[in-house]
Amino acid sequence: MRVEGTDYRTVIMEGSTVRMVNQPMLPLRFEFIDLPTHHDTARSISSMIVRGAGAIGAAAGYGMAQVALEAPDGPEFMDYVQAGAETLRQTRPTAQDLFYAVQRVLDAIGGADSVQAARQAAVETAQAMADENAAAGQAIGELGATLIPDGANILTHCNAGWLAFVDWGSALAPVYVAARQGKRVFVFADETRPRGQGALLTAWELQGEGVPHAVIVDNAAGRLMQTGEIDMVIVGADRVAANGDVANKIGTYEKALCAADNDVPFYVTAPTSTLDARSPNGATIPIEERNADEVLHVTGITDAGEWARVRVSHAQAKARNPAFDITPARLIRAIITEKGIHAPHELPLEASR
Amino acid sequence: MRVEGTDYRTVIMEGSTVRMVNQPMLPLRFEFIDLPTHHDTARSISSMIVRGAGAIGAAAGYGMAQVALEAPDGPEFMDYVQAGAETLRQTRPTAQDLFYAVQRVLDAIGGADSVQAARQAAVETAQAMADENAAAGQAIGELGATLIPDGANILTHCNAGWLAFVDWGSALAPVYVAARQGKRVFVFADETRPRGQGALLTAWELQGEGVPHAVIVDNAAGRLMQTGEIDMVIVGADRVAANGDVANKIGTYEKALCAADNDVPFYVTAPTSTLDARSPNGATIPIEERNADEVLHVTGITDAGEWARVRVSHAQAKARNPAFDITPARLIRAIITEKGIHAPHELPLEASR
Repeated sequence: MRVEGTDYRTVIMEGSTVRMVNQPMLPLRFEFIDLPTHHDTARSISSMIVRGAGAIGAAAGYGMAQVALEAPDGPEFMDYVQAGAETLRQTRPTAQDLFYAVQRVLDAIGGADSVQAARQAAVETAQAMADENAAAGQAIGELGATLIPDGANILTHCNAGWLAFVDWGSALAPVYVAARQGKRVFVFADETRPRGQGALLTAWELQGEGVPHAVIVDNAAGRLMQTGEIDMVIVGADRVAANGDVANKIGTYEKALCAADNDVPFYVTAPTSTLDARSPNGATIPIEERNADEVLHVTGITDAGEWARVRVSHAQAKARNPAFDITPARLIRAIITEKGIHAPHELPLEASR
Repeated sequence: MRVEGTDYRTVIMEGSTVRMVNQPMLPLRFEFIDLPTHHDTARSISSMIVRGAGAIGAAAGYGMAQVALEAPDGPEFMDYVQAGAETLRQTRPTAQDLFYAVQRVLDAIGGADSVQAARQAAVETAQAMADENAAAGQAIGELGATLIPDGANILTHCNAGWLAFVDWGSALAPVYVAARQGKRVFVFADETRPRGQGALLTAWELQGEGVPHAVIVDNAAGRLMQTGEIDMVIVGADRVAANGDVANKIGTYEKALCAADNDVPFYVTAPTSTLDARSPNGATIPIEERNADEVLHVTGITDAGEWARVRVSHAQAKARNPAFDITPARLIRAIITEKGIHAPHELPLEASR
């Protein structure tokens, strides 16, 4: 998508190097970081240099391609590949796209009849997945835009924009398509504590695409629905269970409750790579608990234009930090994939693995 | 309440000077600020040096006593008093205790037969209201503690502790009483963006009283109810309408929805001075919209132990900042005043004015 007139992808691979947007620098600086080995790529996922379901999936796919390129010839090849897959799988527990991408490259490697063919299959599969992810975002955007009336005020949570994917995004893709179609749209971006992806990333993305928007604290969505100022909610997903329950960034469930209580339609967007046919419902999705420091500190930009971290509680304070929650299917009006607009209990599960 | 072994009140009056805890310095420094005139006291309310329904009410009452002490003898006395009352009323729009306190001192002044008697009545009424506020907090604590089982995990939002009152608080008073009774209690303190009163003030209060606690982001309450880790919710109120609808810090409504969806009891605590018989329901309560800067910045403590403010969105970002929301009576299990534990539709409205 667009930054000052130029189009970019979030994650690409050049030779054996993965190159990605250095997301913790946004919105202060828009810069890219090069990751020469799969170990670097794995660390970029666990440390959230790259975050967002689709972007994690693409990075993991490219990371598996790096694994195949790095692996020694001969009988140790598959051992190295399996160890690399495990390293990548251990980076984040909730995002379905991560496991989908690792497995799909593993399958491609397993189907090759030589080490050289395996390396080529790994690189091609990773590239294909990245291209599919970008295409899925665009398709979700075009389908989702049909649900957006002219003049709509749209709430979104966290960042499910192009930074969270290879391109376009999931939740923001319909917004971008609607805006490019000439519809007037306004976006309320939930700040999304603890890491602030809504205020830091979504607002910056919307600015780049010229979409008018306002940041709100996560507490304010209910009030703005009470007053009729929000017409619809669109969020992304980190994993969608077979019954339509959705794991997404912590706080999504609260917004869905607000929407239900105020008859505001609540839409979830996700490529089919985020569907998990093997999780029968939300209770079977593992939920990551992250470090308490993320809650007890806020990182932001000083008046001097530098990053700084401040503590927001007393020095002995403890915190709990679940990173995701489960939005039950009953609160979701529809789930939009690249294949269509689905009732939560009618997902195209055959497309997932 | 207790700070390092010594008991304090949030707001007191000595001679004609109002002295209050300088709340924006907490938890970094516990210090008091002296306010020599009612103009200083009014500014302390609007700038949120003092915040919280009961503490605002006490400060406003003392501010009215300052008005009476400052007012010139003779025919200009009542003009000065009326102007001072208006100055104090203009500081914050939502907190019922503010209007209650100003009116009650005005009534006391109106009932006096000389300027000297009016001054004495104003001071005595302000002092009586502060004492009543502290006593109401203790009574709410004793009533509310009967609802807290041993081993309870309690969620609270914002700060409705002793800092928000003259002493004891409303939402935290039952916690303090239960803890002093020897019950094991654990408190989840919502951070409460944008101003972070939960992380900054509630956590600090709980530390002073030795109550174990964890800070969570405002997004996390729903998840912790989904997993059964929260047994009850206790919040305060800035104004309670006649039908039991409650205006309280932004985000309270979202927590009430989470509680209802998970069958977690949701309690509101408020002295009868917070009841507003003249607001038939929540829709008639004015909701303050505060400055966007509060959303776009976070103030916290650096590693060097100094306050610093950081921006948490891009430089051109806009924000919306409603400061309160309305929790409908249907989501509230009970409202606890100093007079009893009431169903939301059975409030002791005769005690309010």
